[in-house]
Amino acid sequence: MASSVAVENLNPKVLKCEYAVRGEIVIHAQRLQQQLQNQPGSLPFHEILYCNIGNPQSLGQQPVTFFREVLALCDHPYLLQREEIKSLFSADSISRAKQILALIPGRATGAYSHSQGIKGLRDAIAAGITARDGFPANADDIFLTDGASPGVHLMMQLLIRNEKDGILVPIPQYPLYSASIALHGGALVPYYLNESTGWGLEISDVKKQLEDARSRGIDVRALVVINPGNPTGQVLAEENQYDIVKFCKNEGLVLLADEVYQENIYVDDKKFHSFKKIVRSLGYGEDLPLVSYQSVSKGYYGECGKRGGYMEITGFSAPVREQIYKISSVNLCSNITGQILASLVMNPPKAGDESYASYQAEKDRILTSLARRAKALEDAFNNLEGITCNKAEGAMYLFPRINLPQKAIDAANAANKAPDAFYALRLLESTGIVVVPGSGFGQVPGTWHFRCTILPQEEKIPAIISRFKVFHEAFMAEHRD
Amino acid sequence: MASSVAVENLNPKVLKCEYAVRGEIVIHAQRLQQQLQNQPGSLPFHEILYCNIGNPQSLGQQPVTFFREVLALCDHPYLLQREEIKSLFSADSISRAKQILALIPGRATGAYSHSQGIKGLRDAIAAGITARDGFPANADDIFLTDGASPGVHLMMQLLIRNEKDGILVPIPQYPLYSASIALHGGALVPYYLNESTGWGLEISDVKKQLEDARSRGIDVRALVVINPGNPTGQVLAEENQYDIVKFCKNEGLVLLADEVYQENIYVDDKKFHSFKKIVRSLGYGEDLPLVSYQSVSKGYYGECGKRGGYMEITGFSAPVREQIYKISSVNLCSNITGQILASLVMNPPKAGDESYASYQAEKDRILTSLARRAKALEDAFNNLEGITCNKAEGAMYLFPRINLPQKAIDAANAANKAPDAFYALRLLESTGIVVVPGSGFGQVPGTWHFRCTILPQEEKIPAIISRFKVFHEAFMAEHRD
Repeated sequence: MASSVAVENLNPKVLKCEYAVRGEIVIHAQRLQQQLQNQPGSLPFHEILYCNIGNPQSLGQQPVTFFREVLALCDHPYLLQREEIKSLFSADSISRAKQILALIPGRATGAYSHSQGIKGLRDAIAAGITARDGFPANADDIFLTDGASPGVHLMMQLLIRNEKDGILVPIPQYPLYSASIALHGGALVPYYLNESTGWGLEISDVKKQLEDARSRGIDVRALVVINPGNPTGQVLAEENQYDIVKFCKNEGLVLLADEVYQENIYVDDKKFHSFKKIVRSLGYGEDLPLVSYQSVSKGYYGECGKRGGYMEITGFSAPVREQIYKISSVNLCSNITGQILASLVMNPPKAGDESYASYQAEKDRILTSLARRAKALEDAFNNLEGITCNKAEGAMYLFPRINLPQKAIDAANAANKAPDAFYALRLLESTGIVVVPGSGFGQVPGTWHFRCTILPQEEKIPAIISRFKVFHEAFMAEHRD
Repeated sequence: MASSVAVENLNPKVLKCEYAVRGEIVIHAQRLQQQLQNQPGSLPFHEILYCNIGNPQSLGQQPVTFFREVLALCDHPYLLQREEIKSLFSADSISRAKQILALIPGRATGAYSHSQGIKGLRDAIAAGITARDGFPANADDIFLTDGASPGVHLMMQLLIRNEKDGILVPIPQYPLYSASIALHGGALVPYYLNESTGWGLEISDVKKQLEDARSRGIDVRALVVINPGNPTGQVLAEENQYDIVKFCKNEGLVLLADEVYQENIYVDDKKFHSFKKIVRSLGYGEDLPLVSYQSVSKGYYGECGKRGGYMEITGFSAPVREQIYKISSVNLCSNITGQILASLVMNPPKAGDESYASYQAEKDRILTSLARRAKALEDAFNNLEGITCNKAEGAMYLFPRINLPQKAIDAANAANKAPDAFYALRLLESTGIVVVPGSGFGQVPGTWHFRCTILPQEEKIPAIISRFKVFHEAFMAEHRD
C-alpha cells in the first residue's frame, strides 16, 4: 500500500485555518528575494521591504543593551567569575544576572523549569504588574509562554468543545485568533470595530453579535479584546474598558485581553490601562475570568526571536486552573531565555542604576521614532487618491482603507483574488513592499484595506512613501473607471 | 450572569489528557519541598530527588562550555568588537558566533525567523545529518521547533481528524504521545514492547494490533517509534529497523521516529541508526512519509531549558508540506537561541578546533558517567526482592518491574490508587525520591513498574541506592502476603 497521507485526508480544521501574516503574499516575496539574490537587477527594485509583520529587529531596530547584557551573562555564568567583564558589562547588568541566577534552582538556565516558569521570575513579573497597575499581582497567576501565541492556543483549546462554542473577536483582528479558533474547531463570532470613529469598540454592536450568535445556538464563551489594537492601532478609552468588563461579567464571558502592545502608545491623550487594573478598580475578583497576554516581542524591546511572554490568569476556579496547568505541563516549560527576558521587560533599569540613562535613551529613541514614522506614513496614505487612514495611536501598524475603482475589483475577480490581495500583490511586484491584505484580518464586507507596519527604519520612510505613491498613482490610473 | 467557565464545560479532550511525568506525584513532591524549606527537619529526608524527568542540568550536570560561549556571543554581539573577549572565550567559539551571525539576516537574533527556522542554521543541521547518516539531507526538510514536543503536537494535529483516526504507539511510551493524541481527539493504538526480550519491538505484535484496530473501524495513520526507548532504554537493532520501515511502507503508515536520545547509548554492542538512514538504505524516497525528531534537551548536552529541536520531514507531498508549513507559521517561529543550539549540537567542535579537546572531555565525562550510573542503578534494582530491571542500553531511564504482593495491591485499591502509584507515593514520602509510576506510561495489564532517571549526580548514587533499599525492604515487609 502506498502512503495514505494526502491533503484530502488531513484534519479539515488544519485545512480551514488561514494565517495571512505569513501567507501567499509573503511566500511570493520570499521567492522574489531569492530572485534578487540570484539575478540582481532582474526586478524593478533592489530589496524586499517586509512591512507585513511586527518584527522590528528584522528591519534594523537594535536590541536594548541592558537586556542583552543580562542574557549573555545568564547564558554563560562562568563570565561572572572573571574580572575582565567589568569593562565589558554595566555594573547593574552584572548584579541583575547574579540576582536572576540566584532565583533559578541550581543556577541551571539549561534545565526545564516549573511548567508555569521559574517561580522567582514570576515573582519579579508580578512585582512589575503591581507597579504598573497599583493593584497586587500574584506569581501563581503567571504562566510564562514562548511568546503570546501559545497562551492564546491554550485558552482556545481549553474553552472550545465543538463548532457550537463561539469566541467573540474584533474585526479587523490579528489572524492568530481566527487561525486558533479554526484549528480548535470553534466558531468565530465577529464584532465590528467602527472605522469612522477611529476603530471604536461599541458595546452595542458586541451585544448585538452576541445575541445573534446565541440565537443561532452558539454558546459564546469568551471575548477577545486587542488593546492597543492590531491591525487597527487604536487605544481604548478607560470608560470603554469599564463597559467591556461589565459586559463580560454580565454575560458570563471569559475576557481574553491581548495587551502585547502595552508599551507602544504614540499619542499624548491616550494611556494604556490593563484590563486587570480595570477589573480590580471595579472591585471584581474571582468572578470575572480574565487572561492578560504580554510578550517580549513588542514594546520598545521588539525581541520577537526570543519567544518570551506570559499570561496572567485571574478569576478562574481552582479546578479550571489545574487543567490550565496540566496543558502547560505537557509541553514542560517555555524557554528560559524568554522567561528571563520577560522578567526584565517588566522590571527594566530604574533611576539610580548605572544603565538607567542609556536604557532610557534607547527606549525613548525607539518610541519617539516609531511615533514619527507612524505619523509620516499616516499622512502619506491620507494624501493618496482613494485612501483614508486612521491614526495609529498605538501598536505597530496602520490599516488604511482603499476605495478601489470597479475596474480594479473586476481585474481582481478575473485573477481569482480578493481585491485587496490583488492590490497588495501588485504593490509587491512593483515596489518590493510587503503589506498584508485586509481580507486576512477581516473587514466590513465591501471595504478593502491593507496592514502596513510602521517599522521600516526612519531614514527609509521617505523613499518608501515615494515608491508607494508612484505605484498607487499608476495603479489607480490603470484601473480608473 | 456569573462566569460560565467550570470544569464541567471545558473541552473534554483536555479533561481526558494525562501527563504523569509532571502529574500528581510531582505536584506532591513540590509541596514537600516547600515544607522542607518552611520547616526543615519535618520530614524523614533533607532533599527531594527528582528522578521523574530527563532534566540533567536540574541535577547538577554542567552545560558544554563551547555551546554556552557561542550563545553568549550571539546574545550580545557587541562583545565581538572587544579585544577583552580573547581572554574570556575560545577562539573557535568566537569564529563560530561570527559565522552564525552572518547566517542570520541582519545579524538579528531578536527577529522572528522564517517559520521553519533560519535557513543558514537549517543548512548546518542538514550538513550534520548528512555526516551522521551518509545520506544527503536538505534544509527544506528541516523544521526547527521549541524542543521536540511542539513537532509531535503538530503532526498529531495534522493527521487526526476524529476519534476514528488511530496512532500506533509503543507501550510503555513517553506520555507526550498519549497526551497529544488525547488533546487532538484521536485513538491511541497500543503495541506492546516485550519486556522479556529487553523491551523488544516485535513486528508481529504491531501487525496484530494494527489489524485489530482496523477491524474496529480505526483508520491507523502513523506508527510512533522511540529509539533509544523512553521509558524503556532499549536501542533497536538495525535489522529490526529495516522491518519497521518496510512495515510502514506496506501498510501506508507515517513513521514518527522519536530520536531525541540518539547520543545517549551506553553499550558497546549497540549503535544508533537514524530511520532516515534506514529508509534511504532501502532506496525509499518520497514514498515513505517519515518524521525524525531531535532535541537539544537530551544527549550529553541536556539543554532542556533552551527549548531547541527540529523535525526532519521526508516523503510528504508538496501540498501536505504546505499545510505543515502553514501550521508552523501560525506560531511564527521557534526561539532563536534554541535554533542556534540545535545547529551547534549537530555540528560540535571538530578535531583541530581550539575547543575540541575540552569539548570531547566534557562530552566523554558526561556519557561515561551516565553509563556507570545506569549500570549501578540497574544492578541495585535487580538486587531487590521482587524487582527485575532490564539494562538501559540508551536514553536516560530505567523502567524496573515490581512484583507487588497482593496485600500492597489491596492497600492501593483501598487508597484508590494504581498499585505502582501507591508504591511511588510511599517511596516519595519515605525517601524524597521522585519516580513516575508505570501506569503513567502504559504497561501490560497486571504488571507494575516505575520510571527512574539515571541522572542524579554520580556521588549521590550510593546514598540513593541505600535509601531506596531501606524503603523497599520495609514496604515489602509491611505488605508481605
